[in-house]
Amino acid sequence: MASTRSLDLVVFGGTGDLAMRKLLPALYHLHCDALLPPEARIVGVARDGLDDDGYRRFAGQQAERFLGRDFRSDDWQTFAARLAYAQVDAMQGDSFATLADRLAARPDGQRVFYLSTAPSLFAAISRHLDAAGLLHGDSRVVLEKPLGHDLASSRQINDEVGRHFGEDQIYRIDHYLGKEPVQNLLALRFGNALFEPLWRREWVRDVQITVAEQVGVETRGDFYDRVGAMRDMVQNHLLQLLCIVAMEPPASINPDAVRDEKLKILRALRPFGAGDVAARSVRGQYRAGASGGKPVPGYLEEPGIATDSRTETFVALKAEINTWRWAGVPFFLRTGKRMQEKVAEIVINFRSVPHSIFGVPASPFHANRMVIRMQPEETVDLHLLAKQPGDVMHLQPVRLNLDFAEAFRSRRLEAYERLLMDVMRGNLTLFVRRDEQEAAWRWVEPILAGWDASGERPKPYTAGTWGPAASSALLSRDGLSWHEEI
Amino acid sequence: MASTRSLDLVVFGGTGDLAMRKLLPALYHLHCDALLPPEARIVGVARDGLDDDGYRRFAGQQAERFLGRDFRSDDWQTFAARLAYAQVDAMQGDSFATLADRLAARPDGQRVFYLSTAPSLFAAISRHLDAAGLLHGDSRVVLEKPLGHDLASSRQINDEVGRHFGEDQIYRIDHYLGKEPVQNLLALRFGNALFEPLWRREWVRDVQITVAEQVGVETRGDFYDRVGAMRDMVQNHLLQLLCIVAMEPPASINPDAVRDEKLKILRALRPFGAGDVAARSVRGQYRAGASGGKPVPGYLEEPGIATDSRTETFVALKAEINTWRWAGVPFFLRTGKRMQEKVAEIVINFRSVPHSIFGVPASPFHANRMVIRMQPEETVDLHLLAKQPGDVMHLQPVRLNLDFAEAFRSRRLEAYERLLMDVMRGNLTLFVRRDEQEAAWRWVEPILAGWDASGERPKPYTAGTWGPAASSALLSRDGLSWHEEI
Repeated sequence: MASTRSLDLVVFGGTGDLAMRKLLPALYHLHCDALLPPEARIVGVARDGLDDDGYRRFAGQQAERFLGRDFRSDDWQTFAARLAYAQVDAMQGDSFATLADRLAARPDGQRVFYLSTAPSLFAAISRHLDAAGLLHGDSRVVLEKPLGHDLASSRQINDEVGRHFGEDQIYRIDHYLGKEPVQNLLALRFGNALFEPLWRREWVRDVQITVAEQVGVETRGDFYDRVGAMRDMVQNHLLQLLCIVAMEPPASINPDAVRDEKLKILRALRPFGAGDVAARSVRGQYRAGASGGKPVPGYLEEPGIATDSRTETFVALKAEINTWRWAGVPFFLRTGKRMQEKVAEIVINFRSVPHSIFGVPASPFHANRMVIRMQPEETVDLHLLAKQPGDVMHLQPVRLNLDFAEAFRSRRLEAYERLLMDVMRGNLTLFVRRDEQEAAWRWVEPILAGWDASGERPKPYTAGTWGPAASSALLSRDGLSWHEEI
Repeated sequence: MASTRSLDLVVFGGTGDLAMRKLLPALYHLHCDALLPPEARIVGVARDGLDDDGYRRFAGQQAERFLGRDFRSDDWQTFAARLAYAQVDAMQGDSFATLADRLAARPDGQRVFYLSTAPSLFAAISRHLDAAGLLHGDSRVVLEKPLGHDLASSRQINDEVGRHFGEDQIYRIDHYLGKEPVQNLLALRFGNALFEPLWRREWVRDVQITVAEQVGVETRGDFYDRVGAMRDMVQNHLLQLLCIVAMEPPASINPDAVRDEKLKILRALRPFGAGDVAARSVRGQYRAGASGGKPVPGYLEEPGIATDSRTETFVALKAEINTWRWAGVPFFLRTGKRMQEKVAEIVINFRSVPHSIFGVPASPFHANRMVIRMQPEETVDLHLLAKQPGDVMHLQPVRLNLDFAEAFRSRRLEAYERLLMDVMRGNLTLFVRRDEQEAAWRWVEPILAGWDASGERPKPYTAGTWGPAASSALLSRDGLSWHEEI
């Protein structure tokens, strides 16, 4: 696993929330598991006036907080020796000289630039890195979402970054793709002959993808009010998950084989025409309510939110895929803040048996179901009917847990750990290609435009619920209901 | 559950091994679970000179032995109050008067005659019961195997019994059909949409049905030497299990709907032509070896066995079913005495994935498999490949246990308990119809005849092994192997 080549992992936004909450903890875990190359160094980059020791002290304080019981002082000491710091103002090209100094000692080493900053800085950082002579053919850049707020701005960013990095050097991260149950969905679909024959319109009634948060906008109101749930969650995470569920079997798990199949799905999504927006989409905005037993304010009362904001904090969509495999099978997507529970899951609802030989009508509520959960815990469940032991044929629902916690004793990797390993190895399979990203924007834009054109406000829903009633109605029109309502 | 109508359950062979080992323990358990009608009485019938109390004492001694820790003295006392005895010589019509006396008090009660005797007595018992006026339209007769030793003798018995009982009054018992995992196989196949689409030649590579005993012929050598493994096990139990696996979905679980489908399978079995016997069958006979760590004699040294006996103690067959669903899928049947382990199981081997996207060749040994075990424990397992947690896509076999022991807390019924309940309720679904039985004989006879005509002796195998090497060769010719050899 460990390479003898040196590695400099340069984290722009190195003192920021994502770096402290996710990236350094992930790197610390990889360090403890001896998965980082011995020569790997992590260079934090930010405008703050810190030296290496100051950065290590700051990072150590944050690590104690975010690592919790995983923080072990002696392990942290050996990890912190890998940390360095460079004070850089991303908008000032000459300030990159300090970074160049830090990297000068290892001119041929592998370099990964992780841009954990506002996307408005991606172009400038790329340009200044290039101008400072810090890029070589094997340099890699990791881009955190959101990449633009529509197709045009995303194209602009990709064009500008693309002047300095080839497409195969650009790692657009979507951390949902690194989650263990999503990986296991690939393994189950394509490692077994059992599921793939069922994975089609003949046997699947509908698919439901939910990413529900319990939190509100917290301190990010100013940012969130300009973005909303569609751009923050649907355009990237939910559509990526949809692709993983729906794609045809790729010829291999090589990056472009997988991404070609995902792209085909994104391009086959039935477009939202003028009448579709009202019929197939719901947008909502939370009102005051309760979360975790405590009263919480409505979205419009949150700090940083315009009092007449129409930004959606909830989206439900009925997507359809115009392919032979999926024609007529609804893919319901749903995401929101201030929902009843924190849950991220993919539910594959299979059709009921065509005829019940047991004398009781086949119940759609007892049909087979596969539930791939990413939050709150990582599991894969298969719901079946089995015979209750006894002298008569009574069928009862049973749930088979496929999460294999017992079968496998090894520690699970967090999504960021897995994805950072992939960046270091140069494996692009789980990263989003430019054409995928643009196809996703192309599908999402008419929905956003339709909402604007409608003149309607987002539908209100009480904080701590599953969203507006229209979300349930979206499914009940097809005789269906969301998984948690069954 | 409990009916108010009186019930007389008359057990011919009432002092015999089956009655003591299986029937009375099953009835005792049903009694303890309040599943027997309050007015149910059990009348043991045999030639022994016993009165009711003598029979109760004898049965009590045997029950302590066979029930073990389930024997509770106070429960046994209330159960024993249901027991009565009638001394009858089945060959002597006038001796049935004693039985008539015992039944006279309840002329309209339900009557079940359980013939746990040699089948050579079935005709005489039926005739004498009728002559003594003991039968009415709702009387039922339960016939224990073996029913004849070939098609002609089975027809003769069925003709004779059929003069006194209608086909819908005749319960030909095959206790394998009452076992919980076999019932669950029906529930899984027809209660879920998940399995039925896969249950066909496109996705199933082969099916293996094994009923292996560790014991030798024990004290039954004299009986066994005239019968052999084909008549004792294959013609009834193994072919019935094959039917349950292979049958088309019946329109309902009504008796004739299910039995019609089973019959279609038996009639669609590819017949054994002259050349097939050598190519598709193996018969074996055990030699001295070891069982459970102790030396055991060979079959020819067992008491009651002719020293030049050619009776087979082991059979392996490659069966094929000439239907659209199963054409080309081998069904391997195997049964034997003095095998390495006591195991009864059905293994559905699914095909490998047609192409491995993960860069390693698809291994036939890691293909999906469903294992329905009746012995030594009752389980249903599904073998899958899943991703091993970690930073790379490594697939590992995992076994999902579908036996639902945790999901269901209720006590499992033994096969005989379940089947006796079905007799009392008049539910024929799990009993073998005459035409099924005759179709099974029709398929088996040419194999027996082929062995006789070959002039060859059964292939020897060492006691305590999985049978002759030719049994493995039967599968390896198709590139396959028995489940335990994987």
